[in-house]
Amino acid sequence: MTLIKFIEIMAILVGAFSGFIEARRKRMDLVGVFTVAFMTAFGGGTMRDLLLDKRPLFWVTHQEYAILIFVLALIAAPLIRTLRQIVSERLIVIADAVGLGLFSIAGVASALDAHMPLFIASMMGVITGIFGGVLRDIVCNEVPMVFRDGKPYAICAFLGSWMYLIMRKYHMGHDLALWTSAVFITTLRLVTWKFDMRVGRS
Amino acid sequence: MTLIKFIEIMAILVGAFSGFIEARRKRMDLVGVFTVAFMTAFGGGTMRDLLLDKRPLFWVTHQEYAILIFVLALIAAPLIRTLRQIVSERLIVIADAVGLGLFSIAGVASALDAHMPLFIASMMGVITGIFGGVLRDIVCNEVPMVFRDGKPYAICAFLGSWMYLIMRKYHMGHDLALWTSAVFITTLRLVTWKFDMRVGRS
Amino acid sequence: MTLIKFIEIMAILVGAFSGFIEARRKRMDLVGVFTVAFMTAFGGGTMRDLLLDKRPLFWVTHQEYAILIFVLALIAAPLIRTLRQIVSERLIVIADAVGLGLFSIAGVASALDAHMPLFIASMMGVITGIFGGVLRDIVCNEVPMVFRDGKPYAICAFLGSWMYLIMRKYHMGHDLALWTSAVFITTLRLVTWKFDMRVGRS
Repeated sequence: MTLIKFIEIMAILVGAFSGFIEARRKRMDLVGVFTVAFMTAFGGGTMRDLLLDKRPLFWVTHQEYAILIFVLALIAAPLIRTLRQIVSERLIVIADAVGLGLFSIAGVASALDAHMPLFIASMMGVITGIFGGVLRDIVCNEVPMVFRDGKPYAICAFLGSWMYLIMRKYHMGHDLALWTSAVFITTLRLVTWKFDMRVGRS
Repeated sequence: MTLIKFIEIMAILVGAFSGFIEARRKRMDLVGVFTVAFMTAFGGGTMRDLLLDKRPLFWVTHQEYAILIFVLALIAAPLIRTLRQIVSERLIVIADAVGLGLFSIAGVASALDAHMPLFIASMMGVITGIFGGVLRDIVCNEVPMVFRDGKPYAICAFLGSWMYLIMRKYHMGHDLALWTSAVFITTLRLVTWKFDMRVGRS
Repeated sequence: MTLIKFIEIMAILVGAFSGFIEARRKRMDLVGVFTVAFMTAFGGGTMRDLLLDKRPLFWVTHQEYAILIFVLALIAAPLIRTLRQIVSERLIVIADAVGLGLFSIAGVASALDAHMPLFIASMMGVITGIFGGVLRDIVCNEVPMVFRDGKPYAICAFLGSWMYLIMRKYHMGHDLALWTSAVFITTLRLVTWKFDMRVGRS
């Protein structure tokens, strides 16, 4: 349980951090920095819960995360400078890949609990994994990166969601399915990133 | 019933197709092509159902449409090339006008069933008819076309929605009102398109 | 009661008016002018109610406001010209500040009624106060002004929301807390505007 909690917080922090960077690149003020970081961290799960009509939203019942992002937004400028010295780009990509795996499988599991059909459940997994970044890019007035760089990001989430669905279909344990699929997504993302693979470039 | 089913599928395909074209114009990858096509096809009805708090969403209970768009997205590049040779622009405009009529009247009927006040119901008709294209343009980082080209597109949906509301008010049959109004919207759109009419240009 | 009604209508009109101006600056047609004005006036409250899952939405039960904006959109061009001669920019800023105060406190009060945790309630106050303008800017294909100009706009709403929450915590009367906090927001906004103060510029 404490491991999941740790990964959850890390995934949220990585989302917020990517929001900080993008908001500052767009020369936003404190309000923009907080909002974009918040949307990036929680946008995917919120979109899924709006579509599935689930309430209360995750961040509503865990206001400590909102407060954490708020405090970090207040010190975003020195924070980013410091982290850039301490943390390598490699580490950010790894943390982001861990977040992608965890968020996506949490999304597909949540959709399966709500008795969604399988393909829709896999879509909900992908939405949970990627839509924070999509909202970040829309608010920052960009065509969403995940729709145009041709790197297998959403596709990793999609394949891992199906791995989870198939494992559940064949009655494997929930925990085994969850962890195997999340690790699969993270690994696939890191391997394709390492070798700079592209697919589906139009 | 089979006629409605046929028109419904055609309307969704036309929406998806316009999403394919716009996504490829923006040089999106496979993920972007699928997402934009999906949003264009289902964005209007989804927005209406979010506002009215109706669940499950149409595409959630009909995952076959999501799968269809997914398969088409995989072959979007050759598909667009082939269709452009076989299908004239005129045919696309006609199919889109049929979709506009059907989606809009489905939207206003759904809002009336939910006991919305009349003006709100007519707005729901228009939202259902046009918001897929609005979301498509926002994701593609454009000011939505339907808000700026001055062509009577939303206005056709608005007038047709009121025709439906008035016919229902005077106790005409549901089917008669539905078909008359949908045909009215389609015809009005095609006539104004043919003569390149503009209204409300600011 | 009549005072609240008067302020409410004025706040909606000011929101719609700022939508008219922005939509016309983007050379939108009648449909765009109406939609952007409508989104600016009601976007904040609608976003809050979607997140809290409250229905029916305010404008659904008060279709007279939608009709009012519709009629004004029809005469937006001469209306803006006339108002610009009669109404000074100062008056628009004052009316907007009054709207910010009232909308924000209505938002935080509504979230408190729904038993939200305090920080989330304060966020709902800010969202209600500012998100209409955010949606307006996204549809108009701009990075939202409230995220980048560094002027204390959202911050006024945030501080006033907390004033309201603290007053309610210490069992002050609902009306007293509401009016004090709303006046505080409006005053703070006007004072910081007057002296062109900036905070949190990144």
